[in-house]
This record gives sequence, C-alpha cells and structure tokens, in this order.
Amino acid sequence: MRILILGGDGYLGWPTAMHFSSKGHEVWVVDNYLKRDLAKQTNSEALISNPDLDRRSEIYELITGNKIKVIIGDVADYSTLYWIFREFIPETVIHYAEQPAAPYGMTDFEEARLTLNNNLNTTLNTIWAVMEHAPDCHIIKLGTMGEYGTPNIDIEEGWLEVEHKGRVQKFLYPRQAGSVYHTTKIMDTDLLWFYVRTFGISVTDLMQGPVYGLITEQTELDKRLLSNFHYDDIFGTVMNRFLVQAVAGIPLTVYGLGGQTRGYLDLRDTLQCIELALSNPAAKGELRIMNQFVEVFSVNQLANRVKSVGNQMGLNVGIYLIPNPRIELEIHHYKPVHTALLDLGLEPHYLTDDVIEKMLQVIQAYKDLIDPAKIMPRVRWNRE
Amino acid sequence: MRILILGGDGYLGWPTAMHFSSKGHEVWVVDNYLKRDLAKQTNSEALISNPDLDRRSEIYELITGNKIKVIIGDVADYSTLYWIFREFIPETVIHYAEQPAAPYGMTDFEEARLTLNNNLNTTLNTIWAVMEHAPDCHIIKLGTMGEYGTPNIDIEEGWLEVEHKGRVQKFLYPRQAGSVYHTTKIMDTDLLWFYVRTFGISVTDLMQGPVYGLITEQTELDKRLLSNFHYDDIFGTVMNRFLVQAVAGIPLTVYGLGGQTRGYLDLRDTLQCIELALSNPAAKGELRIMNQFVEVFSVNQLANRVKSVGNQMGLNVGIYLIPNPRIELEIHHYKPVHTALLDLGLEPHYLTDDVIEKMLQVIQAYKDLIDPAKIMPRVRWNRE
Repeated sequence: MRILILGGDGYLGWPTAMHFSSKGHEVWVVDNYLKRDLAKQTNSEALISNPDLDRRSEIYELITGNKIKVIIGDVADYSTLYWIFREFIPETVIHYAEQPAAPYGMTDFEEARLTLNNNLNTTLNTIWAVMEHAPDCHIIKLGTMGEYGTPNIDIEEGWLEVEHKGRVQKFLYPRQAGSVYHTTKIMDTDLLWFYVRTFGISVTDLMQGPVYGLITEQTELDKRLLSNFHYDDIFGTVMNRFLVQAVAGIPLTVYGLGGQTRGYLDLRDTLQCIELALSNPAAKGELRIMNQFVEVFSVNQLANRVKSVGNQMGLNVGIYLIPNPRIELEIHHYKPVHTALLDLGLEPHYLTDDVIEKMLQVIQAYKDLIDPAKIMPRVRWNRE
Repeated sequence: MRILILGGDGYLGWPTAMHFSSKGHEVWVVDNYLKRDLAKQTNSEALISNPDLDRRSEIYELITGNKIKVIIGDVADYSTLYWIFREFIPETVIHYAEQPAAPYGMTDFEEARLTLNNNLNTTLNTIWAVMEHAPDCHIIKLGTMGEYGTPNIDIEEGWLEVEHKGRVQKFLYPRQAGSVYHTTKIMDTDLLWFYVRTFGISVTDLMQGPVYGLITEQTELDKRLLSNFHYDDIFGTVMNRFLVQAVAGIPLTVYGLGGQTRGYLDLRDTLQCIELALSNPAAKGELRIMNQFVEVFSVNQLANRVKSVGNQMGLNVGIYLIPNPRIELEIHHYKPVHTALLDLGLEPHYLTDDVIEKMLQVIQAYKDLIDPAKIMPRVRWNRE
C-alpha cells in the first residue's frame, strides 16, 4: 500500500514510517522539522540527538534494504502537499503534522498563534489534497483523549446520543479541553466531520492518550533509529519525564494533587493501533472515532510505579509534589470507553514492572545526556 | 463608553457604529475592506455602492456633529490590533471582523482557507489584545444560529445539560454546521470558551439568525449612510435576496423543498440586541451565549409573505423552486429557545406586511441597479 506520513520526523511519525516500510509498504514521509526547531528555541531538545530524516532513512535502508522516501517540506503549505499527493497518490495518509505540546501553546501569543495556524492548516490541506488528488485515500488523523477533557459523565467513543425533552439526537461527543493545543484538536475534528459528511471522504480520528516508551522492533536495529524522545516539561509526556527523572536521581515532579487521570499506551501499541485502523479503513462518508489507549492511571499511580521499580533497580527515586502549573481538575471522574480498537484485534502491551524496568535500562545508557534544567515547569497557564 | 467595532464597514458594522456614536459613545471602527474586495472578485457587489468608511464618517459627522474614528487595517494582523488597543483601551469590543458568507467559503480551497484563517485569527487576536491591553474590556462576538445546525432536539441557549449513565454534565450545546464558514464560528466559540474559563475574560457570544432590512434611524439621515446591502447568492441573506427579486420581477428562488427553517431578525433589532449586551455585560470568566432572533420562518413562508405583499403593491412576484445548491435538511425539526435577550428588554420589530412593504419601497428606488446575474446560485456544495 502507498502510505504517506505527515510529520514523519516526530516521536510517533518515524517509528510509524519504519513499521510500515518493514512490512513491505511503500512509505513517503514529510516533515519541516518544526518540532525540532521549537525544541531548540525553547531549550527542550530530545534526550538523544537523532540524525536528520535523510540520514535516518539511509541508515534504515542500509540495515534493512527497505526505502523510506523523505520530503522536507511544510504540510501547512498547500502547494507542497499538492505535488506530493499528485505524485504519490497515497492510499492512506497518516496525519501527525501538528504542534503537539500543550505547554508550548500556552507560552504566549505567538506560540498560541503558531499552534492554531499550523494545526488547522495542516488538517485543512490534508482534507483538500485528498479531495482533489486522492479521493479514495483513507485519512488517519491523530486526535487526543485530551479533546474530551474531564467531564463528569463517562466518555464514549467519539459520539453521544442525547435525549432532550423527549427527542433524541446523536452528536459528536461534546468536548472541552485544557489547553490551546487540545482546543485545536477539537477544531480539527469539527473540520474533518464537516468535510466527511459533506464530501464523503473517509476518516479515522484516533483519540490517543499519552504515549510512553522509546523502543519498537525497528529501533532495536540501530540506536540511530531511536525515536525522538522528549523528557522536558514542554514536549515530554508525563511518563517519559518520570522515567528520565528516576534515572537522573531527580524526584518525580507531580503537578498538584496528582489525581489527574488519563488513558496511557506504549509506543508499540500506537503502531499496532495505526495498523489496525489502516487495515480496516473507515467507509466513505464515515468519520470513525476510536479511543486509543490501553490502561487508565492517575499521575500518582504512575509516579509510584516508577518509584517502586526504580528503587528495586537500586535507583534512588523520590516523589516531589509541586504547585500545578496548569489549570486542570486534580481529582475528577474519569471513565472512558475504549473497545473499538480491542474489537479490531489490539493486543495491548501493559505497563508491567518488566516494561518499566526495560525502559529505565535503555535510558540509563543516556544518563549523561540528561539536562535537569529541562525538567521543571517553565510555562504556567495562569499568566499572573 | 469607548467602543471598538471590528469589521466596521460591514452590513452590521457600519449601522452599529452610527447607532452607538449617536448615543454619545466614543466609537472607533476598523476594517480592511476584505468583504468589499471579495464581493468585487466574485461579481457580488452590494446593491448600492457605498462611499468608503472615511467618506461615510465625514458625511455622518457633517450631518450629526458626531465623530466616528476610522482605521483601515487588518484585524487578522496582531500588530494592527495591538496598537489600536494600546491607544484606545476599549471598554467594549464588538467583533464582526469575519468572512461572513457560507457560499463564499464553499467555492474552492482558497476560499475555504481564507475563511478559516481570517475568522480564527481575528478572534484569537481580539482575545489576546483584550488580555494584554484591556483586561476589563467586554468582548461581544457575533456568532450564528447556524452553529447549531438543525438537530433533532430543541436548541437551547448556548448550553446543554446532559444526563448520561446516571451522571450529569453541562456542556456547550453540541454544534454541527452546514458550511465551512459556520464551522469556523463553532471553532471561534470553542476558542473563546477556552480563554474565558482559563483567563477569566468577559465574553458575550450572540448566536444570530439571518438579518433582513437596510433602514436604521441613522441611515434615514442620508442615503449615503445606508448599510452595505447584498442581494446576491453569495453575500446576500435569503430575505434580502427575495425582496430584490420581487422588485426586479425575477421569481423568488427557493432552494429545494423550502422547508429550511431559521430564526430571523430586523437589522434594527441587531442594534437593539448589541446594545442590550453592551449595557448588561457578561461577568468576568463568563461566556454568555444568547440566541439572537425574533421569529422563526421557513423559506417557503418568507417567499409567500414577500409574494403576497409584493403583489398587493402591484409587483408581479412569482416563486421558482430550484435544485438546492447546498447540502442541508429541507424538512426538519426546529425549536430554538430565545429568551435571554427578551429578558434583557428586547422589543422586537416583527416582520409585518408594513415592514415588508417599506423595505420593498426603499429597494424600488434602486431598481435600475439590480443585476440579475448576481442572483442565481453560482456555488454548489456538491463538487461533482
């Protein structure tokens, strides 16, 4: 299958590219290094400095014999995406080309503006490139569980049937999120849903929880193929940050009360979920929404798990509760449905002690690269 | 009060500016003539060619002695809005600065892109200009009843309490709209709601139905002060288009079955509603949503009303059912609540036969200017 990956340099984009390439698919990736640039500007570089995409693609080809075609370009620029679609005519496009960090978008006006404009334009361009040049192409869009926020009712899988004054209507599940970034993802979904029902395109929107881990089958081949792994306060997800803190001997920084609860998944399960979505595409005129995570944890639970496994390994892991830089509920109801991907055959990697230990071991090899200045929160939601 | 009007050249912006200026308020208007430019590009110019804003402001001042300060600039450019806010420090900002036409945004990619980028950036900029330079300023944002679409349940006033599996949550009323333009307004509301609850700004979002009419107290002073009145298929609202067709002797073009039902209001009631919102501002940290219309009609009802009054006046008014260029329900449930503005004291101008007759008479004076080529639909939702 011809698979186009937008945002192919990213934490998920690059492992996804290798995964499908190694299964014999024809894979093209596009990236403009926006996230690398923003990480540099904010002193939030990834733990391991990855070779650029061209070099990684060369290394991957030398080892496996498989090719990944690399295009350095901006998906938010329609003329770039236009010629890629016309040339490649992808059968599936996987859209990761978004500014992915909640704290980044909350920094100030320019960061909010960039997040809004980048994320909506990459999505609009993807929709139009499909409509104009590859109308049968299945769009797989990475959404986020954060779109739902933390409502006081159970979170369904994308849709909610509402009974009101004796009548019934099915709606997109009402969403309100905790950052500008998450709000752009709500808007993306609204935009996709408009074009799906008006022009009959085929879209899967994966509402993904925070991902952890850095190992996949292909990254094991050569450490230069490792994913772009962030542990900083801006681009790092909470579990990855905790793992690095444990290795560095810095107490795990829990924001506020630590009762914030989310659905998590292993990087390897992201690949599995994307593959399930790809092999079982949405119908024409269908916006299929699946909640993509395998287990629910509170931040305190994660911290305690890392502490316990780390201490068994002889690390000296503490936990440090700090004032919450974000505005969010710290104790709340959280019961999200997540059966669609299991029904398609997802076989989860759970967060066992062994999995935590393995991740800590990998990170230990890079212990000297850890920069403690990147860990404490530098962006506060409250501007006062 | 210091009142800043964004989009001050428009169908609603200019009458609003004169209305508040004549009540003794200090009024600044900003516009970049985007709508005039788009109208020119699409051969959709207004019925009466209005003097530009500087000239209209001069004429208005000569007649009334009141000043309206005019700034020609782009609200989607933050540096423009920034200095205006720093200089003027408005107490209320009325945000009309959006690409307002559903058919325009459905034309092709570039028009969709312009609509999305203009509308979201003008809104983001307004929010940030308030947060940074006038934190006590009340934002009055023009939304649209079209955000709700035509759900099968009653439409509440902005919010919906949902009971689900024995638990309850109040959400923004779930919205799904019939065009890219309307979808950008949904996104605007989401963006405003995020900043309201995170930073405590004060916002009123007025979900307005289609407006008709061209006369206000101030436009009666001099015909060069008339509002920018569109009757074309792109920028014209349905009632204004029917009035012009009746005068021109062109059968009223009903799209599809004509059962499409909406809440309508007189241009004079838009002014009243804005004034009620301005005199009774939303609290800090409140997103107040009010549904802004006074009567509900189907397209068939409107056509029959215009036909009947027109024929009594000796016009020869026919009705012509044409294939619907839009994708929308033509027969549907429609029961929207609209009590908030009435509770604040709105005294509606209803669409009486006298009101229809008066509007037809005004338009008759411009009969020779009507261009029949502007009336039939030139944009189809279905791209095939």
